[in-house]
Amino acid sequence: MRIDQLQTPALLVDKAALEHNLQTMAAALPGARLRPHVKAHKTTGLARLQYAAGHHGFTCATIREVEGMAAAGLGDDLLLANEVLDASRLGAVVASGARVTLAVDSDVTVDAAVAGGVREVVIDVNVGLPRCGCEPDDAGRLADYARGKGLDVRGVMGYEGHVMPVLDAADKLRQTEECMAKLLKASADVGGDLVSAGGTGNYAVNTWAGEIQAGSYLLMDTAYGEQGMPFQQALTVLGRVISSNAGGWRVVDVGLKSLGMDHGNPSIAGAAVWFCSDEHTTFSEDGTTFAVGDLVRVLPAHVDPTVAMHERLHIVDGDEVVDTYEVDLRGW
Amino acid sequence: MRIDQLQTPALLVDKAALEHNLQTMAAALPGARLRPHVKAHKTTGLARLQYAAGHHGFTCATIREVEGMAAAGLGDDLLLANEVLDASRLGAVVASGARVTLAVDSDVTVDAAVAGGVREVVIDVNVGLPRCGCEPDDAGRLADYARGKGLDVRGVMGYEGHVMPVLDAADKLRQTEECMAKLLKASADVGGDLVSAGGTGNYAVNTWAGEIQAGSYLLMDTAYGEQGMPFQQALTVLGRVISSNAGGWRVVDVGLKSLGMDHGNPSIAGAAVWFCSDEHTTFSEDGTTFAVGDLVRVLPAHVDPTVAMHERLHIVDGDEVVDTYEVDLRGW
Repeated sequence: MRIDQLQTPALLVDKAALEHNLQTMAAALPGARLRPHVKAHKTTGLARLQYAAGHHGFTCATIREVEGMAAAGLGDDLLLANEVLDASRLGAVVASGARVTLAVDSDVTVDAAVAGGVREVVIDVNVGLPRCGCEPDDAGRLADYARGKGLDVRGVMGYEGHVMPVLDAADKLRQTEECMAKLLKASADVGGDLVSAGGTGNYAVNTWAGEIQAGSYLLMDTAYGEQGMPFQQALTVLGRVISSNAGGWRVVDVGLKSLGMDHGNPSIAGAAVWFCSDEHTTFSEDGTTFAVGDLVRVLPAHVDPTVAMHERLHIVDGDEVVDTYEVDLRGW
Repeated sequence: MRIDQLQTPALLVDKAALEHNLQTMAAALPGARLRPHVKAHKTTGLARLQYAAGHHGFTCATIREVEGMAAAGLGDDLLLANEVLDASRLGAVVASGARVTLAVDSDVTVDAAVAGGVREVVIDVNVGLPRCGCEPDDAGRLADYARGKGLDVRGVMGYEGHVMPVLDAADKLRQTEECMAKLLKASADVGGDLVSAGGTGNYAVNTWAGEIQAGSYLLMDTAYGEQGMPFQQALTVLGRVISSNAGGWRVVDVGLKSLGMDHGNPSIAGAAVWFCSDEHTTFSEDGTTFAVGDLVRVLPAHVDPTVAMHERLHIVDGDEVVDTYEVDLRGW
C-alpha cells in the first residue's frame, strides 16, 4: 500500500530512521543497559523491535502499558516507573506470570503495592525534578518499611527529567552527576541491584545509573534534535491539503486532535504554520507550492502525546507502507 | 458506583450542569435552529440527549463522526462541515440510508463528493477566518459547477470562528453581522434553504444564519466561561494525588496525555499548577490541603481535545457515577 491510500491524518514512522535509532542506541547502551520507556510510542509492535535489539526489560508509565506489554509476551521485566494507589490490576498481571516491579515513594504507595498483590518494588527517589520520589534521606527507611510488609525491594530509581533539555554539554554532565550522587546515596541505604534513571536527553553521559530509561530516542522529538544527538526524527503526521485560498493560505487536515500541542505548533517543511484548529492547520507557502489534494508531512512539536492520539502507526519506506502497528497501549 | 472506584485519570461530566446547558440552549435555539456540533464531545450518548432535546440535525468534523452518528441511529441529517478528498466512506453511509451533506469549497472537493457517492452538499464560504471556504464571490459559480455534476446543493455554510473569542458584546455583534453579510450574499447566489454558521461564542447574537453549529455549550470551556454565558462548566478530569513532597509540591496522575494543552495548563481549585508531564501535573497548595490518595478534579483549559483523549466519560451526580458513555466518535 502507498501512503496516498491512507485516511488522513495518519502517523508515519520512517523505517530507515527507526532502524538507525534502534541500532545506534543498542550500540551505545547494549542489552540491559537500556530499559526502553514504552510511554514514548505506546506500541507493542515497536517494543518488540527493541526486545529483538537486545533490551528485554521495559519501563512503563501506566497500568495499561504494563498489562499490554505482558499480554504481548514482553513481560520479562516490566518496571512501572510511577506511583499508583490501586495496584490490583498489576497484581493480576503478576499472577499471570509476568514480572512487574512498581515504583513507591511513600508508606501509602507501599501499602497499595501490598494490597494489590505486587511483590517487587523500587524506591522512587526525588533527585531534583519537582515530581514523584521520596527524599533521598528517606529512601532507606522506606525500603525497610516495604521489606517489613513482605515486599522484595529491587533497588532505586530517580528521574532527572529537568536535565534532559539542558543544551550545554558540560552543564548537562555536571547536573546529571549531582542528581546521580543523590540516587547512589539512596541506593547505598536501600540495597538491591537496580539503579534506574536517565532518559534520551542524557543517555550518553549518565554513567552512574545501572540502566537508562530512554524512550524518545526511537521516534525522536524536534527539541532533542536541536541537541545534536545521533538520532533521527522518524515520526510525522501525514495530512492532505483540503483547501487553498487566494488570500495566501492553505489548510491541511491535521489539527490539535492529532498533534501533541504542549510544546506549541507543529512545523511543515517549505511552509509557515499560522495556527491549529481541532482538525486543521492553516499555513502559508514558504518555498514550496501546495495544492488541494497534496500530501503533507506535518512535524509535531512533541512526539509522545502525538502518538497517544492515534489508533495506529504506519512504517514507511519512502511513500510505501511496509508495516502497520496498532498503538495498543493507549488509555489507563 | 462512586468516583473513588474509577481508574484515574477519568472524564467526569456533572449531570446537573449538563442538563442545565442542554435546556438553556434548547430554549434559546429550539429544534432546527441548533445543529449541535458533535466534535465537542465525540459521544453518541450525549448526542442522543441533544436529539431528545429537539435537535435532530447534527454537525460533524470528521468522517468517523458521520459514520458513528449514522450507526447510532442519529443520521436524520448529518452535515460534515469540513472538506474531504476521499468521500467514499461517506457514500457508504448515504447508501446505508442516513442523510449526509458534505461541505465543498473547490472544484476538487466537488469532484471528490461525486466520486465518493455523496449526493448533497453545501457551499462552504469563507467569511473571515483564515481556514476553509471559497471566496463569497465564487460561491454561485461553485454551486453551478456542483449542480452540473448532479449534486443537490442545499445552501451555504460559513464559520466565523474568529468572532467566538471576542469579549466585547457590541464588537461581537458587529463582527458577526459583517461575516453573515458575506454569507447571505453567497446564499443569494447559491440558492437552497440552508444557511449554517455560528458557534457557542455567538449563538445569542447570530440571528442571520438559519441554524447555529454550536457544540462547546454542552460541556463548556473555561475561555467561554469568561464571557458571562449562561452555560456551566460540566467537564473535569478526575485524578488522584499520587505523591506529596516536603518541598511543597503535590503530584496528581493527570497529565498532558489526558488534557488538551493547546490553551495552556489546566487549573485545580485551591491549588497553583506548576507544570504538566505525560502522566502528571505538579502543583502546590493554594488554600486547600492535598494528601496522597485524595481525589482531585482537574479543569482542562480546552474541552474538545481533552474529550478526544479518553475512551469514556462518566456522568456524575456529586460523587456518584450515574451513567457511563463511550467516547465512540474518536479517530478519523
